[in-house]
Amino acid sequence: MQNWLIKQATTKPDKLALIYQEQHFNFKELFNKVRQAASGLVALKIEKNDRIAVLPSNTVNSYFVILALQQIGALPVLLNYRLSWSEISQQVKLAKVKLLLIDDDLQLNWSATKLLKITTLKLNQLFKVAAPKVTLKKEFALNEVASIMYTSGTTGQPRGVVQTFGNHFYSAIGSAFNLGLDPAELWLCALPLFHISGLSIMMRSLIYGMGVLLLPHFSTVMVNKALQTRPVTLMSVVPQMLQQLLREFPATGYQARFRGFLLGGGPIDLATLNQCRQLKLPVVQSYGMTETCSQVVALSFADAPQHIGSVGQPLFPMQLRLSQPDAEIQLKGPNIVTTYLDDPGSFQRQMTADGWFKTGDIGYFDQAGYLYVKGRKNEMIISGGENIFPQEIEKVYQNYGSITEFAVIGVPDPQWGQVPCAFFTANKRLNSKLLKAYGYQQLAHYKVPHYFYQLDQMPKTASQKIIRPALFKAFEKLKSC
Amino acid sequence: MQNWLIKQATTKPDKLALIYQEQHFNFKELFNKVRQAASGLVALKIEKNDRIAVLPSNTVNSYFVILALQQIGALPVLLNYRLSWSEISQQVKLAKVKLLLIDDDLQLNWSATKLLKITTLKLNQLFKVAAPKVTLKKEFALNEVASIMYTSGTTGQPRGVVQTFGNHFYSAIGSAFNLGLDPAELWLCALPLFHISGLSIMMRSLIYGMGVLLLPHFSTVMVNKALQTRPVTLMSVVPQMLQQLLREFPATGYQARFRGFLLGGGPIDLATLNQCRQLKLPVVQSYGMTETCSQVVALSFADAPQHIGSVGQPLFPMQLRLSQPDAEIQLKGPNIVTTYLDDPGSFQRQMTADGWFKTGDIGYFDQAGYLYVKGRKNEMIISGGENIFPQEIEKVYQNYGSITEFAVIGVPDPQWGQVPCAFFTANKRLNSKLLKAYGYQQLAHYKVPHYFYQLDQMPKTASQKIIRPALFKAFEKLKSC
Repeated sequence: MQNWLIKQATTKPDKLALIYQEQHFNFKELFNKVRQAASGLVALKIEKNDRIAVLPSNTVNSYFVILALQQIGALPVLLNYRLSWSEISQQVKLAKVKLLLIDDDLQLNWSATKLLKITTLKLNQLFKVAAPKVTLKKEFALNEVASIMYTSGTTGQPRGVVQTFGNHFYSAIGSAFNLGLDPAELWLCALPLFHISGLSIMMRSLIYGMGVLLLPHFSTVMVNKALQTRPVTLMSVVPQMLQQLLREFPATGYQARFRGFLLGGGPIDLATLNQCRQLKLPVVQSYGMTETCSQVVALSFADAPQHIGSVGQPLFPMQLRLSQPDAEIQLKGPNIVTTYLDDPGSFQRQMTADGWFKTGDIGYFDQAGYLYVKGRKNEMIISGGENIFPQEIEKVYQNYGSITEFAVIGVPDPQWGQVPCAFFTANKRLNSKLLKAYGYQQLAHYKVPHYFYQLDQMPKTASQKIIRPALFKAFEKLKSC
Repeated sequence: MQNWLIKQATTKPDKLALIYQEQHFNFKELFNKVRQAASGLVALKIEKNDRIAVLPSNTVNSYFVILALQQIGALPVLLNYRLSWSEISQQVKLAKVKLLLIDDDLQLNWSATKLLKITTLKLNQLFKVAAPKVTLKKEFALNEVASIMYTSGTTGQPRGVVQTFGNHFYSAIGSAFNLGLDPAELWLCALPLFHISGLSIMMRSLIYGMGVLLLPHFSTVMVNKALQTRPVTLMSVVPQMLQQLLREFPATGYQARFRGFLLGGGPIDLATLNQCRQLKLPVVQSYGMTETCSQVVALSFADAPQHIGSVGQPLFPMQLRLSQPDAEIQLKGPNIVTTYLDDPGSFQRQMTADGWFKTGDIGYFDQAGYLYVKGRKNEMIISGGENIFPQEIEKVYQNYGSITEFAVIGVPDPQWGQVPCAFFTANKRLNSKLLKAYGYQQLAHYKVPHYFYQLDQMPKTASQKIIRPALFKAFEKLKSC
């Protein structure tokens, strides 16, 4: 298949590709910037199949360099700058990278990078390299590697997910067939480029010839302003972002071209979805993960209002089933990656004998065949023989006044085996007894948390997911006090 | 890849799939009808890889049976009912079909079908076959055959173009990425189902999960009414259709959901395009053929007004080049078929050594890289050493008052080698001298036709293309008179 960037730069040179603050790039300009970065990389002796780590921030330079690595057949290993330095260096070592590129906007302890014993470069240095213009690769083979990113690693060893051009291609197709495609689509990206939610927007841009409005980071003010003043058509959000946007939703609403939010990254409470419905803000829930190269199951704008709480139907051309007897969500199709970096064995253990990917999530179908996600198989709490998923408890408490975030884990209990234990943040000090009483009104008795711990701040990953292992540690510490 | 029909019937059962007159079918109902036809076929001992000829009309039964053949892995050979019976029987024999299915709406000389010595069945008979429900194929492999259709054969031996699911898939993707995709897309099909322009709408419906409004045939009244009263978003047209629609364009215009016309099937005059612009009717010109499985080069809604007369840019993921020195349009990509039925050798002669498909059309690029089609290489007229394409003359005369159709061929001339000769239809009797004088005002002298013949009716193919060999015959006959 012809190199997607060349395709767009040739056939749609004047079409908008990227907006960042006051800078606009059409596909021809994007091509030139990417070629400049690619030329710098080649001058630095970077070659096809070299693994190059990138610590990107949401800036144009990071945007260009990720694409540039793909253009010369090097393998971008995208690192999460919100991880600790020891986690970052672990991934750099695991990935056996030749070079580490760091966005200029990131404040790092540069002496620490020396300990890695690999060449480290700030992006502005790369763009200053004097280099003759290189010829970019003519074709993208669908089985070639486009990106590598480590799973957030909330549990266990980080694993490098190897995403091919084919994975990105089919992901983009499924998204377009589901959400439709506005000829003037402008997708707002406030999610990090090192995460599949952000990177997939970049890839869709190349595949569709679509515009991206890149924001340096998520800020309620910045996003609400962009949705009022820029011709944004779609925006990817995680639940917390949507909740924050609604809290400061402008009285005049968003501009007319806005088609809606693509919501991923975990379960959301019904109150938020109902509020969106009242405000006539279309929200499409979706389900996916790094290994599925973005959303693979989603609602559509047409059926979203009738199936609130569901994550929808498998996107084209994905297939979906629930395993027996434990109802694990399993997926099959060309969106699914085929290996972890240097560790095909671990990946094989994620696959069934007949070739389906085991997501590790438990779900169920409603009568119309729409998927609902109950929670992670390994987060399931067994209390007195009953199965409990943290999410069913969390959803109930997210609607409790003044609670901002709420997470449940299972903790050991001599009588019941395990019992639910809740951690939360709130706008004011809350009383455990009242919280327990609320639970008894809303939930089966065995689902009501035995413990309630109020935190100043939830431990969260870069993609705003709560780090459950940190909560287990916190529980042990609190109990021993 | 999962069987597209099963995919849509499973994930979008209630979504509109097909409207025909007052009948509506959602994807679940379409699936049931197609399975019924497939069950009948299996009961008749039709098996995987059997070649089955279909003489379809634009009816639901033809629609169902074409899909049913795909569903059991049989190969539909789509025949053009407007051909002569001897042409049809030639194709039936060439294709070595096991069964011939004929739409009930077609008036045929049934005694002639007996001479074919193959089983012949009317579609309503097929739907009456008592048959247990069969299981349809689970997956569509992209390299499997989806449809076979003979090229219109205006010259030489008819050749069976073998289109795979992959050809249709990439064609649908290129179309969606170019035109965009309305989540409630409803594509009006007034083009014949045996032609790639009609069949490709059916295939897009399965791939996108899109609705089709099928008309029994093209009629200005019927189409103008449908565009006023039904939520049609797109319509495929050939130039003559568009011209006719404009002549009776309703004062109140079309309903608001209508996004525009996809125009294929040959060159169009600028006056028509300008009229569309004045009426604010978006028209996207496109270029393609049976071997490219529908459009492969097209304008977009955004650039169409700036590039009137061009057929645009290669669609995703196609590549386009012009050969040296004769400027033949050559194409590369997964939309292009890979063989003619039982005749890979002939197809190989259509390919260059480095794997590009030779279209036989001559073209040029403007400065912005947009493609213009000059005409067929084998229709080029060489007059006194100058190259002339019939189309450049035809376009000029199509704007001459009261001319309805105008075609030019090259005829032998003792002095110049060849000279242009014109055939035309008009609303009234026209004077050759005046026509010649008009030509001298608009064209280089050597391009002005030496002969003008007014016809009552142009000889045309089922897809409304003028049959040039018939004009050569007519010239010989007229000259000998």
